[in-house]
Amino acid sequence: MLRLVTRSVSRKSVPKACSFSNAPDKLVITEVDDKTGYATVTLNRPPVNSLNLELLTAISETLDDLQNNKSRGIILTSSSKTVFSAGLDIMEMYKPKSERLKAFWSTLQDVWFKLYGSPYPTVAAINGHAPAGGCLLSLCCEYRIMCPNYTIGLNETQLGIVAPTWFQASMRNTISRRDAELALTLGTLFTTDEALKVGLIDEVASTKEEALAKAASFLDRFRKISPQARSMTKQALRSKDIMELEDNRSQDVDLFVYAVSQPKVQQSLELYLEALKKKSTK
Amino acid sequence: MLRLVTRSVSRKSVPKACSFSNAPDKLVITEVDDKTGYATVTLNRPPVNSLNLELLTAISETLDDLQNNKSRGIILTSSSKTVFSAGLDIMEMYKPKSERLKAFWSTLQDVWFKLYGSPYPTVAAINGHAPAGGCLLSLCCEYRIMCPNYTIGLNETQLGIVAPTWFQASMRNTISRRDAELALTLGTLFTTDEALKVGLIDEVASTKEEALAKAASFLDRFRKISPQARSMTKQALRSKDIMELEDNRSQDVDLFVYAVSQPKVQQSLELYLEALKKKSTK
Amino acid sequence: MLRLVTRSVSRKSVPKACSFSNAPDKLVITEVDDKTGYATVTLNRPPVNSLNLELLTAISETLDDLQNNKSRGIILTSSSKTVFSAGLDIMEMYKPKSERLKAFWSTLQDVWFKLYGSPYPTVAAINGHAPAGGCLLSLCCEYRIMCPNYTIGLNETQLGIVAPTWFQASMRNTISRRDAELALTLGTLFTTDEALKVGLIDEVASTKEEALAKAASFLDRFRKISPQARSMTKQALRSKDIMELEDNRSQDVDLFVYAVSQPKVQQSLELYLEALKKKSTK
Repeated sequence: MLRLVTRSVSRKSVPKACSFSNAPDKLVITEVDDKTGYATVTLNRPPVNSLNLELLTAISETLDDLQNNKSRGIILTSSSKTVFSAGLDIMEMYKPKSERLKAFWSTLQDVWFKLYGSPYPTVAAINGHAPAGGCLLSLCCEYRIMCPNYTIGLNETQLGIVAPTWFQASMRNTISRRDAELALTLGTLFTTDEALKVGLIDEVASTKEEALAKAASFLDRFRKISPQARSMTKQALRSKDIMELEDNRSQDVDLFVYAVSQPKVQQSLELYLEALKKKSTK
Repeated sequence: MLRLVTRSVSRKSVPKACSFSNAPDKLVITEVDDKTGYATVTLNRPPVNSLNLELLTAISETLDDLQNNKSRGIILTSSSKTVFSAGLDIMEMYKPKSERLKAFWSTLQDVWFKLYGSPYPTVAAINGHAPAGGCLLSLCCEYRIMCPNYTIGLNETQLGIVAPTWFQASMRNTISRRDAELALTLGTLFTTDEALKVGLIDEVASTKEEALAKAASFLDRFRKISPQARSMTKQALRSKDIMELEDNRSQDVDLFVYAVSQPKVQQSLELYLEALKKKSTK
Repeated sequence: MLRLVTRSVSRKSVPKACSFSNAPDKLVITEVDDKTGYATVTLNRPPVNSLNLELLTAISETLDDLQNNKSRGIILTSSSKTVFSAGLDIMEMYKPKSERLKAFWSTLQDVWFKLYGSPYPTVAAINGHAPAGGCLLSLCCEYRIMCPNYTIGLNETQLGIVAPTWFQASMRNTISRRDAELALTLGTLFTTDEALKVGLIDEVASTKEEALAKAASFLDRFRKISPQARSMTKQALRSKDIMELEDNRSQDVDLFVYAVSQPKVQQSLELYLEALKKKSTK
């Protein structure tokens, strides 16, 4: 439990339930409801929860803790008022150092394995925009509730890059093959309403509070179900996707490193970062 | 044809068509329509068509007969007024004898191979509840017509057990991956209306007679189609699911035997059987 | 570019854009829009664009040209007023010469590989009936727009034959597994409206001109997307289907040759051709 303690500060001692919450400056804030045992996992890297190595590592370790504590379920959400997660942190890919770049991608793989294949049930309460990596985290969950007027999608092609096959597999596990092909080649960012229609999300909630409540209701549906039977069923259904990446982990890292190192990609990133700078100084 | 005779008693001699029907005390009653050649296969193990070794063996042998007689199609239904099939007979799993347990599971595999991969067209006229194994038999068919106000689903997780991968594959062949994941992890029992909406059944019929008539209408749609082209097409589409179990038959038996032998499972079964007893003596 | 020239006659010299169009007596007419770079590829083998070896070869070579010229996208359509393509030319299969029969099937495979796996985006403007092979060409495209009151489908079982696994895969890439199984075993020919409902087509257009305009609008959606990222995404999504045929090309040819050589099949073809003759002389 040492690792857990280093990441979390107990606000109060709770005798029975394994409740732990983190200080506001932590990258991931975990709060466990004493009654239900559900953990609300809040991404907390302002301003937009860009997924850098440190945030991914914090998510990965949080998922380990939850599994070790035999979580009854988690609700993944964001501390931002407008963004669930803006996706991968571009700074990790711009003029990267080789070792860190590899660790970055490998940790993203870890998060995917742990979240997509988790034994406990998972819900995303998507209280803000969820492009690219933000959408991926949502797709790893078993249920998605989203607040109105945001966007979600694997929009990689719009950024000039390719969603890896395991991103694609996560999308195909959620919407139809036909819709997935259109969405992935077009790099579609769906509005909340469009996402509901295509099946990319399951419910709409008008506020974050309502989203969290609906998420808890979804988890409640598993209360009378054997956790072991449930997790074995889920993992059997997702096993082919998981094995496919397991069999190709290192090649997948190499492919990513190679793609990022292309001069064209570095140039695109530079232009993009300059555009961001100009936008922020307006 | 000896095997056929031992299982069936011809009520009248029919000169041309291969018509055979069984006495009311047979586990499976097969009636072939002289005009159409369609066989109505009625599960007949009162009170709820629990699938024990004997019933599964009778189904398996019936399917052999139909294939040997180049059936034009079958309609699977139940002699019960409220239950299509209650699924696997729990008595087969409670304090089982090893050899019988293996034969039980292996015969269930046989039934699945023969029904899911049958050359002739298959329809389920679901005139009662169809949980677990009852749902599986329905999913093996190519078309499903159900009477109102019953329930259907692979509700294994609700019973603390895991639907094997070939049960899952049968579900995924019928409804979307997304809906299958929710249905299988939640162990959802769908009402007739819900089943229609999600695509788990194709039509609703208000009575058994109407269900049988609609089933015959579905079979009629193949009348002008080459049986050989039809069966090769069907088998090509289902071949991956079939090969997956073929490649894992004995491991699948072992896994089942192992799961059933767990003290926890035996305990659950005992509690369940006690609850059933109390219910029946009320 | 020699091959290109032999197949096309430039009506006017266009300085910048790679525009080329073929004389009306060519089997495939390719016209490239100077502004957009989109190629309209018109099947032009009157009366019904039956796919014989020569037409398939012309399509295959056209697709090579377009790829070599880094096409921005193609719109596949027909010069006929009522038929998109009637499918495979039966004359190729009736009393065939072995070498030509093999070349015929191998070229159909080529067309499928090049169209289903094309790097550039593809749309079918289906301005007429599209049974069997005509439907296959449509399914290879990424988007389908169809004019009213025509029919489309893989109706092979209605003809007493079996759609190969890669035809089936193309169907499954477009509509749900459930709908694909029904459509393929029944050999369903969908009307335009039915095709829209089941997802076999994406849009309806009242005239060919409207279909072409809508097709260009679909291609426009990719204008701001990196062609390389787009094509890698598409090819990753379709790679399993493609690899499955790649691994079985020669067996697939052998299987076709064997099937065609069956006396039963030759007899069916003879009856069919006689029926056609009678029909045409009425």
